[in-house]
Amino acid sequence: MNLLLLRAEDFLPDGTARLRGRRAVHAKEVLRAQAKDVLRVGLWGGQVGTAEVLSIGGGEVHLRPTLDTAPPDRAHIDLLLAIPRPKALKKVLPAVASLGVDRLVLVNAARVEKSYFDSKVLAPAFIEELLALGLEQARDTVPPKVFVRERFRPFVEDELAGVFGDVAHRWLAHPVGEKPLPALPRPGPTERILLAIGPEGGWVPFEVQLLEAQGFRTFSLGPRILRVETAVPLLVGQAALYRQLSA
Amino acid sequence: MNLLLLRAEDFLPDGTARLRGRRAVHAKEVLRAQAKDVLRVGLWGGQVGTAEVLSIGGGEVHLRPTLDTAPPDRAHIDLLLAIPRPKALKKVLPAVASLGVDRLVLVNAARVEKSYFDSKVLAPAFIEELLALGLEQARDTVPPKVFVRERFRPFVEDELAGVFGDVAHRWLAHPVGEKPLPALPRPGPTERILLAIGPEGGWVPFEVQLLEAQGFRTFSLGPRILRVETAVPLLVGQAALYRQLSA
Repeated sequence: MNLLLLRAEDFLPDGTARLRGRRAVHAKEVLRAQAKDVLRVGLWGGQVGTAEVLSIGGGEVHLRPTLDTAPPDRAHIDLLLAIPRPKALKKVLPAVASLGVDRLVLVNAARVEKSYFDSKVLAPAFIEELLALGLEQARDTVPPKVFVRERFRPFVEDELAGVFGDVAHRWLAHPVGEKPLPALPRPGPTERILLAIGPEGGWVPFEVQLLEAQGFRTFSLGPRILRVETAVPLLVGQAALYRQLSA
Repeated sequence: MNLLLLRAEDFLPDGTARLRGRRAVHAKEVLRAQAKDVLRVGLWGGQVGTAEVLSIGGGEVHLRPTLDTAPPDRAHIDLLLAIPRPKALKKVLPAVASLGVDRLVLVNAARVEKSYFDSKVLAPAFIEELLALGLEQARDTVPPKVFVRERFRPFVEDELAGVFGDVAHRWLAHPVGEKPLPALPRPGPTERILLAIGPEGGWVPFEVQLLEAQGFRTFSLGPRILRVETAVPLLVGQAALYRQLSA
């Protein structure tokens, strides 16, 4: 945790904040915070800054925050991700938040096991908790907006265009395929990119067709089958660099 | 596991192979293999191919492998990595193997906790097991060569030039810094790249100086502090793409 993430409800009327639970334990045991120490903090969805420790003890930290700095720039990248197995999702959600991804659609696909939908990881409160871990890691305050969609085709045909109306480039990463990423048109420096990343076995042909009908351009990931928690940072990093090189 | 990784010692004089333990359990319970099924296999350090299941049962699988195909191309990227905490190393080692990294030096640094050296994760047998997981994932057979070095300065000053004598580009990823990656000279299509990735808090100035004296060029990772298991695939992906675009 490189930043204590405060919530609006932590604040008292005098502008100080009281934390309990996980964050208070972290401040005491990991940061070894004492009164008068200054900690790095941020407000969920808002500014970052510092906070003076007014008191600590009894499972509680009392802080006086000064929130005066903008959080880091966004990635200007969105993800359409076939729902990974719950164990992988627990790693992917913090990673996606730490990378500054703006929107994440978790969608069903032919090669996604149906049992994943029963996982508690997909509950909104659990998702938010995992995103918070990523924000605390990256010193950010702005979580990705997460959508969970159980039906692939209705999402792609009826909803995708609306959710991603401002996206200039739609790319589909596929295990097999002829063209590597540099074969795709290079985005302008301010253009948004939407990356579709399938299940480990890839999207089935029908899914690829539906996505291509929505303007997705397919590129090859190469012969190595990567875990989703490895593929996501790799592809987000490549998309960002590819766009950056257009400047 | 997308490939059953065979060892030379699994082979019988008649060219068939017998597996027990983790791989036999996986073949039976996950792949639900039966006699006459054909499985994807590879030989540690060698070719990949398929194997017919001759028999399965009693905790053992008997296979007839045909190893006739080269494993996937290497990344032609090496890593100098400050030793991560053991929990992170357990994720990084499979990821590094799955990415096709050729050499990985795990080195001590000022901001590495000394207790990490007592971790069983650094034992050669444990490292090899974690690399095998990554190879099985990526359908590769060739593990990275891993070096563990407890002393930063002697390694950098006396050993690094020998280990990485064939590396054309040495890059140092740093949390702060002025230049992004595209400010560095672009590698030729066949030139090797060595990436130095520090602890989460970054290398200390003394370490940066020693690395720069060995020809490392520093570039900025940006303001987001990423977990090492997120930073490694991101940077390996960016280095590969940056080189690919020179073609």
